[in-house]
Amino acid sequence: MNKYLSGSFAVLMTPFAGDAADEATFAKQVNRLKDSRVSGVVTSGSTGEFVQLSLAEQMNLTEIAAKEKGDKKLVVGACTGNAADTLKICRHAATVNAAAALVCPPYYFRYTAAEIEKFYLTVAESSPVPVMLYNIPFFTQELELCVIYRLFEHDNVVGIKDSSANMKRLQHLVAAADSTPVSVLTGTDDILLPALAGGVSGSMTALACIMPDAVADIYAAVESGDIAAARKLQLAILPTLAKADAETFPKGYKRLMEEVSGMKFGDKEDKI
Amino acid sequence: MNKYLSGSFAVLMTPFAGDAADEATFAKQVNRLKDSRVSGVVTSGSTGEFVQLSLAEQMNLTEIAAKEKGDKKLVVGACTGNAADTLKICRHAATVNAAAALVCPPYYFRYTAAEIEKFYLTVAESSPVPVMLYNIPFFTQELELCVIYRLFEHDNVVGIKDSSANMKRLQHLVAAADSTPVSVLTGTDDILLPALAGGVSGSMTALACIMPDAVADIYAAVESGDIAAARKLQLAILPTLAKADAETFPKGYKRLMEEVSGMKFGDKEDKI
Amino acid sequence: MNKYLSGSFAVLMTPFAGDAADEATFAKQVNRLKDSRVSGVVTSGSTGEFVQLSLAEQMNLTEIAAKEKGDKKLVVGACTGNAADTLKICRHAATVNAAAALVCPPYYFRYTAAEIEKFYLTVAESSPVPVMLYNIPFFTQELELCVIYRLFEHDNVVGIKDSSANMKRLQHLVAAADSTPVSVLTGTDDILLPALAGGVSGSMTALACIMPDAVADIYAAVESGDIAAARKLQLAILPTLAKADAETFPKGYKRLMEEVSGMKFGDKEDKI
Amino acid sequence: MNKYLSGSFAVLMTPFAGDAADEATFAKQVNRLKDSRVSGVVTSGSTGEFVQLSLAEQMNLTEIAAKEKGDKKLVVGACTGNAADTLKICRHAATVNAAAALVCPPYYFRYTAAEIEKFYLTVAESSPVPVMLYNIPFFTQELELCVIYRLFEHDNVVGIKDSSANMKRLQHLVAAADSTPVSVLTGTDDILLPALAGGVSGSMTALACIMPDAVADIYAAVESGDIAAARKLQLAILPTLAKADAETFPKGYKRLMEEVSGMKFGDKEDKI
Repeated sequence: MNKYLSGSFAVLMTPFAGDAADEATFAKQVNRLKDSRVSGVVTSGSTGEFVQLSLAEQMNLTEIAAKEKGDKKLVVGACTGNAADTLKICRHAATVNAAAALVCPPYYFRYTAAEIEKFYLTVAESSPVPVMLYNIPFFTQELELCVIYRLFEHDNVVGIKDSSANMKRLQHLVAAADSTPVSVLTGTDDILLPALAGGVSGSMTALACIMPDAVADIYAAVESGDIAAARKLQLAILPTLAKADAETFPKGYKRLMEEVSGMKFGDKEDKI
Repeated sequence: MNKYLSGSFAVLMTPFAGDAADEATFAKQVNRLKDSRVSGVVTSGSTGEFVQLSLAEQMNLTEIAAKEKGDKKLVVGACTGNAADTLKICRHAATVNAAAALVCPPYYFRYTAAEIEKFYLTVAESSPVPVMLYNIPFFTQELELCVIYRLFEHDNVVGIKDSSANMKRLQHLVAAADSTPVSVLTGTDDILLPALAGGVSGSMTALACIMPDAVADIYAAVESGDIAAARKLQLAILPTLAKADAETFPKGYKRLMEEVSGMKFGDKEDKI
Repeated sequence: MNKYLSGSFAVLMTPFAGDAADEATFAKQVNRLKDSRVSGVVTSGSTGEFVQLSLAEQMNLTEIAAKEKGDKKLVVGACTGNAADTLKICRHAATVNAAAALVCPPYYFRYTAAEIEKFYLTVAESSPVPVMLYNIPFFTQELELCVIYRLFEHDNVVGIKDSSANMKRLQHLVAAADSTPVSVLTGTDDILLPALAGGVSGSMTALACIMPDAVADIYAAVESGDIAAARKLQLAILPTLAKADAETFPKGYKRLMEEVSGMKFGDKEDKI
Repeated sequence: MNKYLSGSFAVLMTPFAGDAADEATFAKQVNRLKDSRVSGVVTSGSTGEFVQLSLAEQMNLTEIAAKEKGDKKLVVGACTGNAADTLKICRHAATVNAAAALVCPPYYFRYTAAEIEKFYLTVAESSPVPVMLYNIPFFTQELELCVIYRLFEHDNVVGIKDSSANMKRLQHLVAAADSTPVSVLTGTDDILLPALAGGVSGSMTALACIMPDAVADIYAAVESGDIAAARKLQLAILPTLAKADAETFPKGYKRLMEEVSGMKFGDKEDKI
């Protein structure tokens, strides 16, 4: 069955100059992917440090991405503490023809599974763009599988990005989405090959933004059925990923981007 | 030794009408405490749902509190994901003569203890108002004791609010702050008596906002040396607190406030 | 209301020589407390490293304690992975006239709250000695408050030892046990004063075994209503406790015991 | 490079009758695998409920397995709270020609990473049988990757069983063990296909004991390069696994074994 979203999505980073986003560098970052093999780009993901940006700043960067992305798909992170703000982003996403909004559970406070389910239903019900669930247990509450299964039934929920690296979860999600148009994407570059072998539709990761070919080559090897070649490629990128992970997320990935692209990707800092 | 902050501080809640703060009700909430026995009021605390408010909205509510608080002290929550935004709030807090800024560790991302220490040093170094540390492990990373001990040495760090309810932590913090002007405040109404017996300088809690007399009476009993009376008062408020805690924080406290005050304290919702 | 257990209980440690308990030193440890102000002694607690001892070894040490304890009460740890083994210890405890069995939830595997409740009901139903619940979330699953409240209703459940240091839990447990014969004891020496002020019936701790006078003096000060004196005593023992806690539990306490008593309290080691 | 251990290992369960192991049923369980495609059998694993068995009971079951296993390899769980008891099991394992001892970190108490590393070095240094590390974070402390990498260098450490289902960990372990004889095995039936695609040497699981063909068929499909067929087989066993996981581990697997084998696999219970 055809999936609404598949292949490799590049999660964009936010280069800061002082406490404001460096828009020119952000634009170049998107433009750089125009001719790559990625399926699309993602604004305001965790790697994009949405938690450091106001809604207006996030919308501004999304508009830049929309302008620079060529024919790539655009997925817009709509990660806030509540349905009202998430829907503001979803409505804006519709104005730039986003393919989907990527929505993590509300963070900081701790919610019951029932409240999280209701949050997603509220968003799915009113969002003018399709909704992707987003599981990222390192930073906010884990989405329970039974909640996800129920949300998969909603017409306006088109998939999930799961960044847990828990392949057991992913494998059960793949099973739940089998024979449906719902997409299951991994958020973990380190497990691309096993996740693709297990049946995920694609991935949404930082490395696809930084080294899109390294990611696309693994996809190509898996698609051609050459698991041995894919494994060699997968193992080859692990040291790079381990180095990026050694710093507090997403700083290591920004440093890697600086090395690879020659551009400056500063962190948010106070201008005195 | 005299403590910079002591006694009972009332953490203000944010009444929402749709997705915006209801400023009139907020003002009444502050005004209601003017003649109570609380030492001060706190804006943009966790109970104030800062995570649901933009920086501008937070500053606006702080200005209302400054206007309505009478001669109470004002502590301003400066809880954001980074030092740049936290310092914006600290600088604004200075314009309304705040007694201190209450600063939680950055949330969502996971930081090393060294990064959190550096974050606080950056804020303490540049903030025009004194800084209170804020430990709230249910919602963001726990502050390590050794980090707190070192931060207590900084001239612009005047205390800590600890909402862990972990009396072992509190007791060691009291010891570290003994014979210094640094204040250790508990953020947990349920443990007022034992915390005061153990030597904390005060508290910063929701119940002080809702039922300031219930809190003040416990202080008075402890100060008069009547532990038996204090225990009776402490036990008397536990069922009320348990009921408020049964809902996702801080909703149960808002419902209690509605009951007690007759005012409407709605949650943030999408206006369609 | 009179409590079945109250005051300070000394949790005994297990001195090892190679991989076997050093029975002579163990006996001296108990004998040393005969004329102290402790209410009783506890065998096979966490501090006693029950997890390093077979059931037979545990029973042997309990018999030594029964012989050496003078007129002190004896509480026997019955902490195993299942009700069958726990009941074997409870039945043995009856043969040495133990006042109670201290029972932690089964460890290693993860159980539902309902299974843990059923485990305790099974034990309480069949144990010939009264049962004390034991909450120690650092090492095994936390007992939920609502489960504890229901277990408090059982005729053969006489109390709880709570080692969480979470004073909010303790305060609510004190409230639940108020006007009943059920005892709430803290397992944390660092919070003796605040816990006693809050209304616990007593404590079950390592320091009571090592420095029984230091603990008894705090009790005496609280009972005489002199909170300022109690606080001074409480603060005075904190550095000693912090040093003991700096090592992996319970090694630091064994080292402290060696310093204080001049006896050798070795850890379990392989004899080749 | 040839791996010391590879392929599918069946983790044996312990059928209880009252509070004692049912040896006859245990023997039949082993015998049933003699002509299957599993590489070996494992006694005293988590699924075997070692935590419910004394050292002597564990050794007895291991001897039965040694007698009944035919030409399959035998791996012996040596999971205890300390190096002394773990080495007792390792020495016994040598007497029955075990291929390896499977050693989890000490449980109940919390150890530093350095202590856990020293524990493994002590065991590896003295064990007469090769040592497999065992990572099972649901039940005891997680082994840190950097500790594992160093332990992989020890001559007597031949591999790791990782039951985390964290494919990122597994993929980095595969990389670390690449071009060495060290084996990386997954402990999770739900991720067999992705883990094998990612390069693990094999698996050590409950389903291999219960339905050895279902597991062996996935191996065969992967080895023949037919990922699509392997995925179909992998998805087919997921509902069975989800049902077994819905009960507290390992009860659901014992119930599944009863269904599949017609034998009785009771849980440990008190005989009154």
